[in-house]
Amino acid sequence: MTPIAGWNTDPRLDLVLQREIEVPRELVWAAWTQPEHLRQWFTPAPWKVSDCEIDLRPGGVFHTTMVSPEGEEFPNAGCYLEVVPTERLVFTDALLPGYRPAEQPFMTAVILLEAIGTGTRYTAIAMHRDEESRKQHEEMGFMEGWGKALEQLVALVRTM
Amino acid sequence: MTPIAGWNTDPRLDLVLQREIEVPRELVWAAWTQPEHLRQWFTPAPWKVSDCEIDLRPGGVFHTTMVSPEGEEFPNAGCYLEVVPTERLVFTDALLPGYRPAEQPFMTAVILLEAIGTGTRYTAIAMHRDEESRKQHEEMGFMEGWGKALEQLVALVRTM
Repeated sequence: MTPIAGWNTDPRLDLVLQREIEVPRELVWAAWTQPEHLRQWFTPAPWKVSDCEIDLRPGGVFHTTMVSPEGEEFPNAGCYLEVVPTERLVFTDALLPGYRPAEQPFMTAVILLEAIGTGTRYTAIAMHRDEESRKQHEEMGFMEGWGKALEQLVALVRTM
Repeated sequence: MTPIAGWNTDPRLDLVLQREIEVPRELVWAAWTQPEHLRQWFTPAPWKVSDCEIDLRPGGVFHTTMVSPEGEEFPNAGCYLEVVPTERLVFTDALLPGYRPAEQPFMTAVILLEAIGTGTRYTAIAMHRDEESRKQHEEMGFMEGWGKALEQLVALVRTM
């Protein structure tokens, strides 16, 4: 296990995106936790978010529907596990809202925000159950996708 | 959804054991959360618990190893989701400690304790992902097994 920003990660099973961004973490938190903001940055363009539901408490729903450039919808259902305002957000698709085990578990995501001067050290961790899932996520373009989404988040936050 | 003791349940997917027991909930909580107690009641005799690890916080380990009368070991790994002392304990085997998705998710369990005079209204809910898992758990003897374990818990608590 490698501790990254206070979270134990396993390089064999996890993917990590860490960047320092020049926007305050309070606004990054708002972008992650308010549907009207999240819809604007969450999917790398030209993908869109058609629906977003957030109940920001452990066991509460985190649901998004992503739409491909061709118009195909991809719903993602999950629930929050930890909510520490401006610091830490943990959610998973292994559990539905109310903690019911899900049919198609894929990952748990951890978003860690640390204040660095007026900016933020941003760490996003995707945890998988096996190497195959990690590789699959890597091949789906985790680094490029989550990186591009983060750039969109920063651009949005600059307008807030 | 049917609310039972403040928790939404789905009769199609969940199993519920609810009983009023004549021991205070503080001791029931201790029996559920301290390994030296849990080992004494958790498996209906003649099954035994050979190992129990508890890190009582969201994301912390809840691991038990059950031993059949023939000596075969059955390890169960999972993690806690909610820990509200003397009131509510939620854990799942859909996530390993640290919230990593598990390979073989089966259920999330919710233990609810309400003070009724000097006794306790005890509610145990097992939530499954589909009807097949619920039926399987029913056929494994959920009601008898969890009921007998609860009787062992009450007997233990009377000696505390």
